[in-house]
Amino acid sequence: MRSVSIIGTGQLPVKKRHEATLRQLGAAAVREAIAAAGIDPADVDALYLGNMLADELQSQKHLAALIADEAGLAGVEALEARAATASGAAALRVAFLAVACGAADIAIAAGVEKMSAQVPTQPLAKALDAEKEVPDGATMVSQSARVMALYNQTYRTPSGAFTGFAVNAHANAQGNENALFSGKVVTAEDVFSSRFIVPPLRLFDCSPICDGAAAVVLAASDLFPRAPVKILASQVTTDRFRLLDRTDPLVLEAAGRSIAKTLATAGIRREAVDFFELHDAFSIVACLALEAAGFAAPGQGWRLAADGAIGRDGRIPISTRGGLKARGHPIGATALYQVGDIVAQLTGTAGANQLPEPKIGLMQSFGGLATTVLTHLFSL
Amino acid sequence: MRSVSIIGTGQLPVKKRHEATLRQLGAAAVREAIAAAGIDPADVDALYLGNMLADELQSQKHLAALIADEAGLAGVEALEARAATASGAAALRVAFLAVACGAADIAIAAGVEKMSAQVPTQPLAKALDAEKEVPDGATMVSQSARVMALYNQTYRTPSGAFTGFAVNAHANAQGNENALFSGKVVTAEDVFSSRFIVPPLRLFDCSPICDGAAAVVLAASDLFPRAPVKILASQVTTDRFRLLDRTDPLVLEAAGRSIAKTLATAGIRREAVDFFELHDAFSIVACLALEAAGFAAPGQGWRLAADGAIGRDGRIPISTRGGLKARGHPIGATALYQVGDIVAQLTGTAGANQLPEPKIGLMQSFGGLATTVLTHLFSL
Repeated sequence: MRSVSIIGTGQLPVKKRHEATLRQLGAAAVREAIAAAGIDPADVDALYLGNMLADELQSQKHLAALIADEAGLAGVEALEARAATASGAAALRVAFLAVACGAADIAIAAGVEKMSAQVPTQPLAKALDAEKEVPDGATMVSQSARVMALYNQTYRTPSGAFTGFAVNAHANAQGNENALFSGKVVTAEDVFSSRFIVPPLRLFDCSPICDGAAAVVLAASDLFPRAPVKILASQVTTDRFRLLDRTDPLVLEAAGRSIAKTLATAGIRREAVDFFELHDAFSIVACLALEAAGFAAPGQGWRLAADGAIGRDGRIPISTRGGLKARGHPIGATALYQVGDIVAQLTGTAGANQLPEPKIGLMQSFGGLATTVLTHLFSL
Repeated sequence: MRSVSIIGTGQLPVKKRHEATLRQLGAAAVREAIAAAGIDPADVDALYLGNMLADELQSQKHLAALIADEAGLAGVEALEARAATASGAAALRVAFLAVACGAADIAIAAGVEKMSAQVPTQPLAKALDAEKEVPDGATMVSQSARVMALYNQTYRTPSGAFTGFAVNAHANAQGNENALFSGKVVTAEDVFSSRFIVPPLRLFDCSPICDGAAAVVLAASDLFPRAPVKILASQVTTDRFRLLDRTDPLVLEAAGRSIAKTLATAGIRREAVDFFELHDAFSIVACLALEAAGFAAPGQGWRLAADGAIGRDGRIPISTRGGLKARGHPIGATALYQVGDIVAQLTGTAGANQLPEPKIGLMQSFGGLATTVLTHLFSL
């Protein structure tokens, strides 16, 4: 397996009601990543695309070929990769496989989602079981609320236990010009007094509906020896599909297993991880992801937010440029934004949000409620 | 890049109105392929799934994880791969990459589609351009009819020029118990007198709407030295997305390029190909695919059907167990049926449809009107 490096990234500003069309957004991100990589478009061997909702919201399938054409890459290998809300990470995974095996020297993983012009609740719920969960009213929001309620009951968490996740995310989005909430100051009071979406989930416990596109250029490390950031490991794991089929709905078993395998593959200790771009689609999910990864004991994840350990100067910084909560969560594009943020941190170009000389960045993406888990590890 | 072998295949009978649910169909095909491979389910590293229409027809996304769970494989890597009507081949491509690079020792490519209970015309048309083709009334059928009319006009083909494609496909489906039309005798008169769907396309020029699921187990050749069939090459190419953006709508440029690259990669001459499982979703598409592959000159593809060259004892046998036309075209599963048919031919287990000792089988799948082209080459 060849070593794989990141040689360029592109991110469009996350917005609500982007004026551009879906294909324009996707192609713009691809072109930006190609320009950042300093390569010729003709050098691109393949484009793998992540998207979740265009079937319903734009009545468009076959997006990889469409966006390849729109970006001036007609002729390249172009396929879509999917894992519901982790579809961007699925595209990254396939691009990694293509470069690692030598099928491509240069491959682009891109993601795009334009979801704010309609209410995407029902298409999003197709990440859950259409026969056994959705008919009972389950949505991504309601399932997350259900888990949060169970967590609060099981661990008797204090009122406002999760407030720190949104405060941290919004603080970190300050100065990130690509974040949806780049200029919004959010206090604990704002979070705790925000309206309930599905109790106990409040507005600020949820990532926003928004539009965006991002792309990453992967290449064989030996062909680009000066590219600073390598992908140390790429890993995919699944859990039982239905929440109620799991032994303990409060344990993200696949997430834990995926992290353990990723670190073992790379020969990296958990303590060596400098920051963790996790799937903070909901504050409870961020909390459970920290526990699954072993950064906190079961029932203790919220304390990392409460005591500042997730801050940029904390023990395990998360969502360092805003995360899904404050940068935004344009579903199929999200993982490619995460990669862009990790590369920015590792190369010291994260501006106002820069961590002090990080060497190892960990990233995780969840399809559904951590049903499909993709973990990637990056290093200088 | 490691050599990749096929160690097992599974096919459910193609039907209309399958009694089983989508997940049951998919899981049954996966289990059948695992049993055929003689491996333990716990040995499976990854499952890649092809499907095109479940978003709309079953309100279900996230199918790879769902079917992994249903098949008792919860825990494995599971992702969907897509390229519209070639989504099954996209799953095969990703499984090939995973095994070739060493990320998986054993990977399953599976496909499932349940599309006959509703009218799938509009979801299928999402393979085309939703902004610039579909608003003008384009569907997969109408675009194919448009190309056929242009072909007839350009090359002044005789009446009934395409009849031989359906006759051949139906003859080859005889004795294939998994074919939708396994017991249907079809004459040239039947074909030529069938009703127009969109002129000049008649009913028998079109593959049928149907349900099915198929799966293939891929593995590293060095771990399974006795597995008889190897994948010699795997290739993906794209064309301009919109038909009218192409230099010549009668030339499937990407299809030709993909075949040329595939044969060059494998070091195989075109003349060494013993049979060609092509994407005969429409008779005109089969004709153009034969021309693109170099088996006929432009404007002459239909003659291979007219003079029997595509028959099982002809110069270049196609659709040897019924093809998309007579086995059926359950979209996301189709390519995995093609692989199963190729393996059956190469291993001498094709029964009534057996070719005389074939050594090299070529396979091609089209997303949209040969917009995304996937070519795979198999050998004993």
